[in-house]
Amino acid sequence: MSKIILAHGEGGKLTREFIEEIIFPLFRNEPLKTLTDSAVLGKIKDGKIAFTTDAYLVSPIFFEGGDIGSLSISGTINDLCMCGASPLAISFALIVEEGFEIENLKKILKSAAVTAKKAGAIIATGDTKVLPKGKGDGVFIATSGVGVITKGRNISDDFIEEGDKIIVSGDIGRHGATIAAFRHNLKGKKLSSDCAPLNAIVDALFESGIKPKALHDPTRGGVATLLNETAKRTKLGIEIYEEKIPISKEVSAVCEVLGLDPLYLPCEGRFVGFFKPKDAEKAMLILKNFKSCKNCSIIGQTTKIRNKMFPVLIKTKMGSVRPVDELSGIQLPRIC
Amino acid sequence: MSKIILAHGEGGKLTREFIEEIIFPLFRNEPLKTLTDSAVLGKIKDGKIAFTTDAYLVSPIFFEGGDIGSLSISGTINDLCMCGASPLAISFALIVEEGFEIENLKKILKSAAVTAKKAGAIIATGDTKVLPKGKGDGVFIATSGVGVITKGRNISDDFIEEGDKIIVSGDIGRHGATIAAFRHNLKGKKLSSDCAPLNAIVDALFESGIKPKALHDPTRGGVATLLNETAKRTKLGIEIYEEKIPISKEVSAVCEVLGLDPLYLPCEGRFVGFFKPKDAEKAMLILKNFKSCKNCSIIGQTTKIRNKMFPVLIKTKMGSVRPVDELSGIQLPRIC
Repeated sequence: MSKIILAHGEGGKLTREFIEEIIFPLFRNEPLKTLTDSAVLGKIKDGKIAFTTDAYLVSPIFFEGGDIGSLSISGTINDLCMCGASPLAISFALIVEEGFEIENLKKILKSAAVTAKKAGAIIATGDTKVLPKGKGDGVFIATSGVGVITKGRNISDDFIEEGDKIIVSGDIGRHGATIAAFRHNLKGKKLSSDCAPLNAIVDALFESGIKPKALHDPTRGGVATLLNETAKRTKLGIEIYEEKIPISKEVSAVCEVLGLDPLYLPCEGRFVGFFKPKDAEKAMLILKNFKSCKNCSIIGQTTKIRNKMFPVLIKTKMGSVRPVDELSGIQLPRIC
Repeated sequence: MSKIILAHGEGGKLTREFIEEIIFPLFRNEPLKTLTDSAVLGKIKDGKIAFTTDAYLVSPIFFEGGDIGSLSISGTINDLCMCGASPLAISFALIVEEGFEIENLKKILKSAAVTAKKAGAIIATGDTKVLPKGKGDGVFIATSGVGVITKGRNISDDFIEEGDKIIVSGDIGRHGATIAAFRHNLKGKKLSSDCAPLNAIVDALFESGIKPKALHDPTRGGVATLLNETAKRTKLGIEIYEEKIPISKEVSAVCEVLGLDPLYLPCEGRFVGFFKPKDAEKAMLILKNFKSCKNCSIIGQTTKIRNKMFPVLIKTKMGSVRPVDELSGIQLPRIC
């Protein structure tokens, strides 16, 4: 059998065989092995529990730098570590369209398993459902994650004060530009998604004694929307410098051709962090130990609020100041 | 605006407004209110963590006795309490097709919120993604749940022994028969899905000092598949009596007309429990306090294994014995 059929999602014999023959060899771990209604994760003695979810509809399913499998696991791990949590377990719900190639599904599952393993997380529980041909579009994945926030790792926008430095962990817009380029059939040799788990990088910051005040990953809506959300929550202004925003030549080229603004393009392996001024340079040194962070940059700081409607301002390379609004309308459907 | 548009899923202004104006008033709770990357649930000092997920594609979205909203919350709560866990928090990932009526979406969200509230669980984190028209089919939902298994509530198939009694908590096949009847335009006045959370019933058993050895909910694949899976895991045989299996007249009628076997029809508000013989009658008395359990029944027991290929046997009303296999092939696509 080379294609998914409806019976793979019916909960009977074929579902069991699919799980035993395809899922198990890839995701093998103790809680999953029991194959019962819930995974039992054991006790968590110290620390608060963090809990997150996301649905992934990305089109194309396979793209330069990743696929829907690695994207879904990275996204969930990143949501956990953006609140200081270490990933403990991930759930994986697959919605597959009838007729989807089992070989392609295996590639997706393998990529999910490898990404989770590298990040030290397990895929502890899952579900497989099949949509009749034409009622879906290949594969959708919904993942959720449970993590533990140990003592000293509680971070929150509540800690942000006027004058805090804002760091992006690497060049921005790669994921969005990669998907946009694919859709418009633009070829760029070096362009690939930044899709990757961030937990090792966040761990390195904490282990060096640097506590970020807050961390967020600029996914849908990009850096611009993230900064607007943070400004609204903290009731502070934010000031960034265009010349400090790291953007690769490849991403710039795609944005120029397609008329996209990199500040609104999603990243899937970057964070925007808010740091005490005295921690910012030290944080940069630690980030630079990671290949994916070699272009990290202090892009600006929080300020007193000047304009409530537009709390985020950018100083352009030309020296002018303009407001940066949150994303309104749509830029790229099914980007993640 | 009366319909979902792509921008509702883009993570920008319209997504924020959708969350603030529609999701918040319904799901309001502390962890959700922060609207950050993960919900922070607090510490869990005693007990193991249980974790589960399911995707819901049910068609029709609204059916007698429930809708995709109440179904997704009930299903997740039930998966948790089938392993003895009390539901703590639920995640809710929405995949909506462009053009879907916002009023209908509100109904679904309200029904999810009410079901969670009744069961004492919170919807702590979520996600909304929009599929372009024609790439989905109305609404899909993926929920996951985190629960706590407190001391003394660890239940597992490992505890099942030869001679244990098997109880179903109510009449079977209602959810499957309701969906099947709708699709074939059969009208039955009293037929409605059994879709409901089971945690109050499970709590009542534990509070009366009765510890089920194992509990499972007969969803996809129905009671027949559940019994086969349990027999395989425990390496025991299972013997059930046709005359003891509670099936309503309405479900029987639908099955007769459509040629369906109620043993394979999914329930969404029933459990199959395995009990020590001395506990079984007492468990029945407790169950009978719940309206949904008034037809609960001891349907059989575990036995030595006689036939490895077919470990589950049924004694028919005619006195003959026949094997009950797990579901093979498909019976009803998109039943949940």
